[in-house]
Formats: sequence, C-alpha cells, structure tokens
Amino acid sequence: MLLIKVGGGEFINWEGICQDVASLVQTKQIILVHGANVLRDKISARMSVPVRTVVSPSGFTSVYTDSEALDIFIMSYAGLANKKIVGMMQKHDVNAIGLSGVDGKLWRAKRKQNILIKEGGKTKLLRNNFTGRVEDINTDLLNLLLDHGYLPILCAPAISHENVIVNTDNDGAIAVMAKALNCKIMVSLFEAPGLLEDPENENTLITHIDREKIGDYITFAKDRMKKKILGAEKAIEGGVEIIYWGDGRVSSPILNVMNGNGTVIS
Amino acid sequence: MLLIKVGGGEFINWEGICQDVASLVQTKQIILVHGANVLRDKISARMSVPVRTVVSPSGFTSVYTDSEALDIFIMSYAGLANKKIVGMMQKHDVNAIGLSGVDGKLWRAKRKQNILIKEGGKTKLLRNNFTGRVEDINTDLLNLLLDHGYLPILCAPAISHENVIVNTDNDGAIAVMAKALNCKIMVSLFEAPGLLEDPENENTLITHIDREKIGDYITFAKDRMKKKILGAEKAIEGGVEIIYWGDGRVSSPILNVMNGNGTVIS
Repeated sequence: MLLIKVGGGEFINWEGICQDVASLVQTKQIILVHGANVLRDKISARMSVPVRTVVSPSGFTSVYTDSEALDIFIMSYAGLANKKIVGMMQKHDVNAIGLSGVDGKLWRAKRKQNILIKEGGKTKLLRNNFTGRVEDINTDLLNLLLDHGYLPILCAPAISHENVIVNTDNDGAIAVMAKALNCKIMVSLFEAPGLLEDPENENTLITHIDREKIGDYITFAKDRMKKKILGAEKAIEGGVEIIYWGDGRVSSPILNVMNGNGTVIS
Repeated sequence: MLLIKVGGGEFINWEGICQDVASLVQTKQIILVHGANVLRDKISARMSVPVRTVVSPSGFTSVYTDSEALDIFIMSYAGLANKKIVGMMQKHDVNAIGLSGVDGKLWRAKRKQNILIKEGGKTKLLRNNFTGRVEDINTDLLNLLLDHGYLPILCAPAISHENVIVNTDNDGAIAVMAKALNCKIMVSLFEAPGLLEDPENENTLITHIDREKIGDYITFAKDRMKKKILGAEKAIEGGVEIIYWGDGRVSSPILNVMNGNGTVIS
C-alpha cells in the first residue's frame, strides 16, 4: 500500500505522475490524494470572491471557509481538479475513481465551527466556519475499490459527524488514513525539492530527517510546510515508516522521490 | 432496482427527494442521476462565460460544449451539485457515493467532435465539441457499490472511448444504463406535473401513455422534453416497463409520482 499526496501547485507534472502511477500500480495498491489551491484561487478570482487567509494564534495560516468559499472549494477540488486527474489516469490505463471525503462518508471530521484568529495584533473569534479535522476513515470503501482494481483519487472536503460538508487539511487527513490502512510508505509531492533549510534557496535541501525528530524541523517551515510537518509527525505516530518529500515538477516525480531525491523521513 | 432521474431545475424539492429515497432504499436498490443546468448557468454567468445554445438540423436544442464550457460543466455537475446532494442524502442516513461518468469509466461515450447546427437559416459545422452519446456502462462498479449498501448518485460528464471527458445527455445515458442493469421501473422528475399537451398550461397533463406509442408524443414536446421522449423510447426498447414522469417541486416527489400523479408510461 502506497499513499501519495500531490499538492495543488500550478507546475505539478501530472503527466509524469500518471505515468509513474501506471507503472507502480502493477505491483502495489495505491491511493492518491490531491490538492487544488491554485485552481481554487483562480476560480475565486473569476467569480470575484476574495480568498480570505487567516492566521491562528499559534501562527498557522489557513483559508477561512464560509459558505460561499466552501462552494468554490467543492467546485475546484471535488469537481474540476478531481475529474481532470481521473480522466488523465484513464488515458494511462489506470482505472481511477475520484471521490471526495463526503462520498460514502470516506473522511469523517470534527467540525471547527468557531475559530480563533490573529488580526492586527488582536485575537478574534470567527463563527460559521466550515472546516474540520478528519478523525475516521471509511476503510471498507477504500479496500472494496482497491480489491476490485480501482485506484481511488481522493480530495477534500470531508463530512462532519453532523453530516455537514467541511473543508479539511489534506496532510492531517492522510495521516489518519495511513494509520487506518496500516500504510508504511508515503509520498508527498509539491513545488520544491523537499524541505529546505532556507525556503528561498533550493540548494539548502535537507536530504534526511530522523523520523523520531521530525517535530524539531518545524523551525525550518513556513506556512503550508508547517502543516506538512505536523501531518508527517502524526503519520509517523500512526505507524508510517518512510515518508518521501519531493518535487512534483520534475519528470517521473514519484519514482524520482522514491529514489531518494528529496527529503527522506525514515 | 429503481432508476431515478432528477432534472437540474431551481425549485426541485431535494429535501423531499432525500426523504423518499431514505424510505424506498429500505426495500430496493436505487440509482439516482441528477442534472444541474440552472446551477451551471449561474456559475457561467458569475464567471462571465456565456452559455451558447445551439439547434441541430432536426430541431433539438443543446448547449455547445467547448473546452471552457466543459470545465464549468464539470465544476457545476460533478462538483457542487453532486457533493451537495450526497451530503443531503447522508443527513437522511443514506450512504450515498457521488460519481461522474468519468469515474471508473462508468459511462463510456462515443464523442461527437464535430456537430451540425442551424444558425440564421443556414447549416454550419461546429468543431472541437466536447459532447458524446453514452454507449457502455460499467455495471460491475454499480453492482459492487449497490451490493455493499451504497447509493450511487450519478451525473455527467461521461468519458469517450479515447478517454476524453465529454458532456452527455442524461436521458440517453439512463436509457443505456436501464438496459445494462435490466431495470424495469424508472422515475423522472422535473419542473412540471408531467408531459403537457400545452407546455404553457399545467392543466393539460397527459396522465397515461401507451409505452409502445411514446414516440408519437414528440409533437407535444418542446426543447428538453424532446430529449426525455427520445430517452424514454430508448429505455422502453431496452426493456423498461414503467416510466413515471412527474413533478420534482411537490412534497414527497418520488412517492407522489409513483402513486400515479403525473404521466405514467406503461
């Protein structure tokens, strides 16, 4: 079982990813999780809905999801991005099925209806937030599809315990999924060669991280990378033994990173 | 096995439909197919992409689907509409899974890349069209989900034999699906009490149509209703014995129409 996460950057080499998946799926079961943040931002702009970024008191950046932002999120992630990837996989003879965390209650989340944010030096309470943290996985559904030769292509949103659709953090969701499926190997691709000591300098790649010490590396991380570190920490607590972080823009992105070209957390 | 199709009108009573499905699914397997044309039109307007309606030489109206229109179609149908319906079903304790015809190659279509249209009295050729006619169904996938207690919520687009994503006519797709699944009963809900002799007058409901003569009724049909007649004819040729056409706006829309309140084709 191999869990692959691909970020929603603009320059991700999806053709290369599909080719790698088509070759790897011959010998192992694969689940792929994708983002779509750049596409979401473009669609938001086209619809004249500003994307509102908020910062938590502990310094984590996220997008505030009210009802309208959630609609655009669903269109972009579960709609356009997901189906385009599924279509591309099928061109490579991979019989993919695209599902959101809502379908079959695949990702059940605890909703965070009210969130604290920092704004202009003050802490404020934001209500009617549609985000949540994934807690339970419908592993029966995933195993059913995998055992019948389908490759699940998954994305947020998730569904809350009260059956409300909520945005969720993919890195957190994958960590819970890895534990539930007893998965030992994970790949995460994004638009950088791996974790960098200096985020502005691609020559400062950290090539190996002792998996017991992943939490210490949060000092090197900015914004989205912080969530990847937290997610990796949670995945390792859940039993994952190797995580490959690497560049989604190169040719053969998955094979490349699994050959050790990136940050190996083990 | 009951196949239910729900049109993409603005005033469809989805709460009522979910309630009816929750009760009917206790005793039979159900597949639901939905439209989203009003939502698609709204999103197109918000994105400043005009919806281009074309008329075929034989008088059928359809929406021209170029690459940009297809993207908006996917967002609206497979994205927002589909996931909202899945979420609502789950509030009613129906474990729904939303899939497009692209997922698992559920609906395989013959692409119509070039189409003839009538415009200003002349016949013209439109190229690079992303529509197609569904020819094959992945019944294994549908049966796999049904046999494990999931309710499939399906919508266009489909995928062509060359693995290109294409828009398709739901009525045609359902007819092919009914035959492939050996389904005998179909329900179709829209924003009218059934087939009307005079489309402008809801008091002119045709309450019964002999299923051998459904084709004759095309004279009463305008625009979208023409496709419903063609679809019904094809479904009956494929072995369907009863089709209930009725109003999706009333309370308990499915139970209502199956009680004979609408147009019964049998």
